[in-house]
Amino acid sequence: MSIDKLIELISKKGNPTVVGLDPKMEYVPDFIIKKAFAEHGNGLEGAANAILQFNIELIDRLHDIIPAVKPQSAYYEMYGWQGVKALHKTIQYAKSKGLYVIADVKRNDIGTTAQAYAIAYLGKADVGGVKLPAFNADAATVNAYLGTDGIEPFLQYEKAIFVLVKTSNPSSGELQDLTVDGKALYSHAAALVNSWGKDFIGKHQYSDVGAVVGATYPKQLETLRKEMPHTFFLVPGYGAQGGGADDVVSAFDKNGQGAIINASRSVICAYKKSNCKPEDFSLAARKEAIKMRDDILKALKL
Amino acid sequence: MSIDKLIELISKKGNPTVVGLDPKMEYVPDFIIKKAFAEHGNGLEGAANAILQFNIELIDRLHDIIPAVKPQSAYYEMYGWQGVKALHKTIQYAKSKGLYVIADVKRNDIGTTAQAYAIAYLGKADVGGVKLPAFNADAATVNAYLGTDGIEPFLQYEKAIFVLVKTSNPSSGELQDLTVDGKALYSHAAALVNSWGKDFIGKHQYSDVGAVVGATYPKQLETLRKEMPHTFFLVPGYGAQGGGADDVVSAFDKNGQGAIINASRSVICAYKKSNCKPEDFSLAARKEAIKMRDDILKALKL
Repeated sequence: MSIDKLIELISKKGNPTVVGLDPKMEYVPDFIIKKAFAEHGNGLEGAANAILQFNIELIDRLHDIIPAVKPQSAYYEMYGWQGVKALHKTIQYAKSKGLYVIADVKRNDIGTTAQAYAIAYLGKADVGGVKLPAFNADAATVNAYLGTDGIEPFLQYEKAIFVLVKTSNPSSGELQDLTVDGKALYSHAAALVNSWGKDFIGKHQYSDVGAVVGATYPKQLETLRKEMPHTFFLVPGYGAQGGGADDVVSAFDKNGQGAIINASRSVICAYKKSNCKPEDFSLAARKEAIKMRDDILKALKL
Repeated sequence: MSIDKLIELISKKGNPTVVGLDPKMEYVPDFIIKKAFAEHGNGLEGAANAILQFNIELIDRLHDIIPAVKPQSAYYEMYGWQGVKALHKTIQYAKSKGLYVIADVKRNDIGTTAQAYAIAYLGKADVGGVKLPAFNADAATVNAYLGTDGIEPFLQYEKAIFVLVKTSNPSSGELQDLTVDGKALYSHAAALVNSWGKDFIGKHQYSDVGAVVGATYPKQLETLRKEMPHTFFLVPGYGAQGGGADDVVSAFDKNGQGAIINASRSVICAYKKSNCKPEDFSLAARKEAIKMRDDILKALKL
């Protein structure tokens, strides 16, 4: 199972965190942008090359201490197909450095179309009888509003998915917290995730069908941990969104396993807060990633 | 308001239908694939060029009789960034022919990330102080599971969005039909759509915040039409998914307005059913698009 690979990388690195690669231009140091513009012009091609270079330096500086990266597709798509090409190259580079790659795409659609998305991020497309991978990540995030039809196509590749259950943003409760038969809607989503995942449980007792549960709602995180004993949690909302180490403890099982905590801006933009030279942005990211790891391990008493 | 532009194009063409451009390779006639492979190799670049050529011929043959096209992003993403480049070119070509373009991307995320998606499909990215459009569609589809944070960023560009309310697929009820306070969840989503849209109502009394409601659930379509008097409906599920002309009548208001009906496979793959020469695929699509238009106008008694 793909989730076994992630669990083993977390164990090997001693680090249950993932760095979100959300590289919008305002996060990229000027010296990288200037070089990219000089080489590729100051349009979308230049922007795409700037974010790719930013990512490569971050991956080079972080890959020995983190198990995984989570590129957020939106920050690539905003720079057009050129940006999407940078996403592709980022995924390939991260994999070449031994990192597990979660494509944060939150895709969702009817069955035939979900199949195409699954092919795009996890599988291979049929091109004239030859099977070719497009983005070839290890896992993808998906939205469950369309039900089983939109999920099953992602389960054909021995890779993992993380289904949105309770998201980290302020308005997540508008639909997710509505009460259905005495339980919150997110608990109904959780029950679906359990049922989708039951045939994909690996040797560490977690399923290839994971869940996204936000760090910013620690009580719900605790409830959902109990309701989903075999579901691995991808937990966004740490750092810039407000979640701290104590907030995420309840995402983990009694052995300190079963979850990976994501931070994006707080790590990749650490250089902006620490008054370091822009040239040292990746060192600042490394320092922040180590602090995050240590804060979480301390909270977990590991 | 952007929705006014769509309504006026529907009126001008006398056709409340949109053709879904979902060009997977198995839909593309062999003669196009052979030419694309000869010119661009038999990899993702060749595949991307084949689907682009397929789209161009469809647009050339259909643009005078239809008001809009709806490219489904999944069918481009499955061919990698090369496919996404074909999506970009398809959108630009359709716009150059006067068509309204709905990017069917069903994006959803927390506020800062939704902002990046909104920039990608409707707005312009800041690249070194210059604002550059990425995909520049007229409208996009979005998923509301994250609530207001994930929707508001899309409302800054004087363009339209279509929010998933009740989708056309068989399992859509697993979450969407759950009962909350005596009403289906999709009705709660509908109420959110009404509130998001109330400040964006154009001169034809419809809002730039539209809704996706499937043709395959005609009763729910009827209920939602009443609950959402100012919401323009994008109605998928016609044709290959099983919805017929009588099923979609209730999507429209008493003046025969307020909705656009999508068909994808039944139109773009019409040549496979009609025993026509593959070289005439776009003629078969035109014939099917005219039949669909006439069937719907007849059902509407217009």
